[in-house]
Amino acid sequence: MNKQEEVHDFIQNGHKTYLKHLSIDCVIFGYHEHQLKVLLLKSKKSIWSLAGGFIKRDEPLLEAAIRILKERTGLDELFLQQFQTFGEPSRSYRTAEDIKKLSDVAKASISKDHWLLDRTLSIGYYAVTEYSKVTPQADFFSEKCEWWDVDGLPALFFDHHLIATEALKALRTQIYHQPIGFNLLPEKFTLPEIHDLYETILGKKLDRRNFPKKLLSVGIIKKLNEQKKIGAHRSPFLYKFDKRKYDKALKEGIVLAF
Amino acid sequence: MNKQEEVHDFIQNGHKTYLKHLSIDCVIFGYHEHQLKVLLLKSKKSIWSLAGGFIKRDEPLLEAAIRILKERTGLDELFLQQFQTFGEPSRSYRTAEDIKKLSDVAKASISKDHWLLDRTLSIGYYAVTEYSKVTPQADFFSEKCEWWDVDGLPALFFDHHLIATEALKALRTQIYHQPIGFNLLPEKFTLPEIHDLYETILGKKLDRRNFPKKLLSVGIIKKLNEQKKIGAHRSPFLYKFDKRKYDKALKEGIVLAF
Repeated sequence: MNKQEEVHDFIQNGHKTYLKHLSIDCVIFGYHEHQLKVLLLKSKKSIWSLAGGFIKRDEPLLEAAIRILKERTGLDELFLQQFQTFGEPSRSYRTAEDIKKLSDVAKASISKDHWLLDRTLSIGYYAVTEYSKVTPQADFFSEKCEWWDVDGLPALFFDHHLIATEALKALRTQIYHQPIGFNLLPEKFTLPEIHDLYETILGKKLDRRNFPKKLLSVGIIKKLNEQKKIGAHRSPFLYKFDKRKYDKALKEGIVLAF
Repeated sequence: MNKQEEVHDFIQNGHKTYLKHLSIDCVIFGYHEHQLKVLLLKSKKSIWSLAGGFIKRDEPLLEAAIRILKERTGLDELFLQQFQTFGEPSRSYRTAEDIKKLSDVAKASISKDHWLLDRTLSIGYYAVTEYSKVTPQADFFSEKCEWWDVDGLPALFFDHHLIATEALKALRTQIYHQPIGFNLLPEKFTLPEIHDLYETILGKKLDRRNFPKKLLSVGIIKKLNEQKKIGAHRSPFLYKFDKRKYDKALKEGIVLAF
């Protein structure tokens, strides 16, 4: 089957492969120096959306989220976390015309009880990555796959704006209970660097003294006997994550308040 | 229709009223003086379980959770919060025999593609109530509806033990970001009383000095010019919630760390 035939087959027979009524949407946050972005896809036939897809009949949820993200954006090895299921009956308002747009072959009339016209609930996952280090790729359905500023998202498909907003709220709560930064900062980093990461994600200022004190007291970062040479009068100490304590905190949870 | 006919009709025609593949399970925590409990139902034909049910085709999720809890336990007016969706393919292992047990009328053979044999994902909700102030009622399917100690749950249906465990984790995280206690304590309470509530829910000791200091500094409780007479030498000051600040914190979130 070529790609166009695959799409046609998906429309006609997808209900045999996938669970009805259910999809997954992934909110991928990208961090880099003071900037927090969200990864969006621009459909060939429609507007911008999150990376989403359907769950196979026998597929575990997390595996489905990983597969969907990989298929739609090329990204993998992200730490995806489930945060909320979206189920307003009005959230998915797909019409027969929308389905016909997906495939030039599928011009056959779409019956009223077509599986894609049913109410769909969506399970939201989020992850955070360092956006300067990855290269997302648009899939067959999309003409673009790009990072957008978290404060300046374009008009989005269905309720994807709400899903992105709730993902950010969940991330901002979770950051007090799970360490973050291992793949977002250089192996050795300065206090201002990790401070910027937390301030950018939380979208607020954090106390210069309490913030590092807290991270050091729970033990997830440790000071190195090594300084970074920035200029004649600036050579801040370097720090690194204590991977053992970081992983323990990831598993058991911590309580940080800066 | 009598109740038994209703059950038969549900088995035969439920897929026309309810969404396939999806259910809701409610973890209701009950607090009272040093005790944290979970509300469980004992099925007439099977073991203990959470209060669960199916979602109507056009029903908003939260409405469905409220309806299901009311139908199965009689409880209402609880602040139900969604926390996680459970979707391991192996979690729901209902057999044709299990379905036949539900109804003495439904002895007709259950076909292999019967809607109740399909994989079911479940959306978890939790709430906390003061268990000495409510009287749960077992529904038609159940012979008992009782509070069980959170640390001593019996064998539970499907993955309900996991759902209860994850609900407790979610509650223990959320308590740092949302105030709790308005319907769990008397209108006027002492610091030891609110201290016990938080310690019991978190399952750990909290600092005697920092704990009240934090609640007072975010403003959700305020000290009254009034003392409780306990004995000749004990008359602790009374406190009450500042309802305006409490509701604001409930809406916007806070960060507490004791």
